[in-house]
Amino acid sequence: MKITRAAILSVGSELLTCGRIDGNADWLIGRLDRLGIRVRMVCRIGDDEIDIERMIGLAHERCPLVILTGGLGPTEDDRTRPAIARALDLEMEKDPAVVAALRERFARFGRTFRPEQEKQAEKPAGADWIVNPLGTAPGILLEHEDKMLAALPGVPAEMQRMFREGLEPKLANRADIHLASATLKIAGRIEPDVDRTIRDLYDRPEMTVTILSGLTGIEIRVTAAGDSDEEALERKNRIEAEIGARFGDDLYGRDDETLASVVGQMLVDAGSTVAAAESCTAGLLAGTITAVPGSSAWFRGGLVAYQDDLKQSLAGVSRESLERHGAVSTQVASELARGVRERCRSTLGLGITGIAGPTGGSPDKPVGLVHLALCDGEGTTVRELRLPGNREQVRGRTVTAALDLVRRHLLSGRRS
Amino acid sequence: MKITRAAILSVGSELLTCGRIDGNADWLIGRLDRLGIRVRMVCRIGDDEIDIERMIGLAHERCPLVILTGGLGPTEDDRTRPAIARALDLEMEKDPAVVAALRERFARFGRTFRPEQEKQAEKPAGADWIVNPLGTAPGILLEHEDKMLAALPGVPAEMQRMFREGLEPKLANRADIHLASATLKIAGRIEPDVDRTIRDLYDRPEMTVTILSGLTGIEIRVTAAGDSDEEALERKNRIEAEIGARFGDDLYGRDDETLASVVGQMLVDAGSTVAAAESCTAGLLAGTITAVPGSSAWFRGGLVAYQDDLKQSLAGVSRESLERHGAVSTQVASELARGVRERCRSTLGLGITGIAGPTGGSPDKPVGLVHLALCDGEGTTVRELRLPGNREQVRGRTVTAALDLVRRHLLSGRRS
Repeated sequence: MKITRAAILSVGSELLTCGRIDGNADWLIGRLDRLGIRVRMVCRIGDDEIDIERMIGLAHERCPLVILTGGLGPTEDDRTRPAIARALDLEMEKDPAVVAALRERFARFGRTFRPEQEKQAEKPAGADWIVNPLGTAPGILLEHEDKMLAALPGVPAEMQRMFREGLEPKLANRADIHLASATLKIAGRIEPDVDRTIRDLYDRPEMTVTILSGLTGIEIRVTAAGDSDEEALERKNRIEAEIGARFGDDLYGRDDETLASVVGQMLVDAGSTVAAAESCTAGLLAGTITAVPGSSAWFRGGLVAYQDDLKQSLAGVSRESLERHGAVSTQVASELARGVRERCRSTLGLGITGIAGPTGGSPDKPVGLVHLALCDGEGTTVRELRLPGNREQVRGRTVTAALDLVRRHLLSGRRS
Repeated sequence: MKITRAAILSVGSELLTCGRIDGNADWLIGRLDRLGIRVRMVCRIGDDEIDIERMIGLAHERCPLVILTGGLGPTEDDRTRPAIARALDLEMEKDPAVVAALRERFARFGRTFRPEQEKQAEKPAGADWIVNPLGTAPGILLEHEDKMLAALPGVPAEMQRMFREGLEPKLANRADIHLASATLKIAGRIEPDVDRTIRDLYDRPEMTVTILSGLTGIEIRVTAAGDSDEEALERKNRIEAEIGARFGDDLYGRDDETLASVVGQMLVDAGSTVAAAESCTAGLLAGTITAVPGSSAWFRGGLVAYQDDLKQSLAGVSRESLERHGAVSTQVASELARGVRERCRSTLGLGITGIAGPTGGSPDKPVGLVHLALCDGEGTTVRELRLPGNREQVRGRTVTAALDLVRRHLLSGRRS
């Protein structure tokens, strides 16, 4: 039996407060889309067991696939488990093997195991477990011949990993249309420009092309449909090549690649390393780089020179440059880059200084003014940016621009 | 009859694509909250008339107030109107006055009136119109003695104005409940422990208490109801005081406060500053601290000592400690703390070293092992943590634990 329609139910009263975004549902819509499964309803429900039970009943009747997130924990307001059993008229059963595994996990982390934790070892009769490698609450999978219902934890990292490892392989076999997707990542362009560059590609029947803009750059998502996997893949490859030709060096990566992971691989290939002295981003660049597993192979370390006196004592910026040009200047960015390169003994040194706001701006040097410098021992490349947005946006865009500066430097090095 | 619970249904297949936020639902949650009406379910539904009809039926049965947005236009995929009629078993009727008004409006804007536009003049028998001053599609309002169902257009400006002018005045008379809310923030406890501590507070008719757990700690959200603003506020204050007494120092803040902003204010009050030497978090702590506007008043700077040789040359860690105890040890964390305090000339120095994974763990020192040290010039406080989760979770939880270590140190300083 093929599955082409799905419902997503997100459980938890905290999801029903103003300003709250249901990121889990959004992530699942994207993943199911790649499998050719279209989401037909997405519901957030509070911790009322009857509401949850009734919604499961409706979703299960209307959609061959129902995915629930949240409400699987051991606490009083975690009500997904019994609601599933009641909606589908199943008994609850406790799994002694899961009780034992929970006890072992608690012992390993030196925590006291309490009786209520055993709730997490209960599931509706006939259901299978979905292993949770990152947390305590296992997921639940119910399969009939023509329907599937899965319950995953609400913690995004746990939910995503369990979906990928426990659910996606089963769904891949049951979807109907053949799709091939890719996400192409662009740096150094603004959204209207990207839009203009690919606008003629939007309206093709066998293809969807959408743009998503964020602090880490712009993504173009391409999904091609076909009567077979091969046809879909061939169409996707063709459009990918077309878009690649239009963006040239501004296309930096695909799918799960990030600017940091791409820069990291380029540094490894070149046998180079980088270090950073940060003022306005103050550790955010280093934190972004080291989110990449294995970054110790190419990231040496850094200085967070948030105060002017530390720009001197930690990074060797001259008092004269600070006095004559101010902390937010090409000169200070360059001296930060040279100083951190020397102190961290890296191939490349990055210097970042700017005004993130909300205060600290002046007519001459407004909020959003940022100076970047990249030093490789032979010379120093500098960039002046004027970034829009609030403190968080200015800092996020500065990190993106700094990583992109390193990438373009390495690209030009390859060519010369 | 009072209305205290609501469902929001957003109709339109375009709402079910990845990256799409349902801003109408979010806006309505906020407006209804002010009226003392709690939203219990929020659903996005595609343009399938049976899905819409079934969802209206469920929502109408469970909630005395149902608000639909979208699907009221004249096109083929606008199916809210007939779905309401079918769900509630009502006939459709065409209103000649609305047909005339639509014709007049089209003539005024010089547009051709097409027969399908008359669909917008149809409503379920017994329903009232909600005037749309900004567009063509009027809204629909059905009132029984104990229930209300309203359908508004999906265009945000039209929906908001019609809600404010056509619906809110009616609801204000029927809600009659006054609410007061607060979010209380907890550090240093795990979720089952928080749950156990406040479980007896969940089931009170005049109050809801929910728990939300994340990398930055645990939040308790309290909403109290009363017959007047004063009564609700008084109840909220009482429960807040009760929860505060139960958690003591583990309660670190309220509402928009973050651990970093609270620590910052405490440092300012004490006339103190902090600096950090980070290995496994590698800038993430500094980046989190400097996300707080004004953090330059209390954050001096930091060292990202990601490589062992830089722990020596940047932060002054001894080679002997590294060789004898390894980089992830109490000794190295303490030397990082002392080194960064001295080099950054701060009142307090923080040292962080650990194994974030996915690789680098051993039976002796597994992934998730973290050593923290805080030095104030007189002594050094150390903490050993064993954190669950993936790389991102271990790093995030380490940042939270490090900030909390500073907070508790400042608390004990106030008392002595």
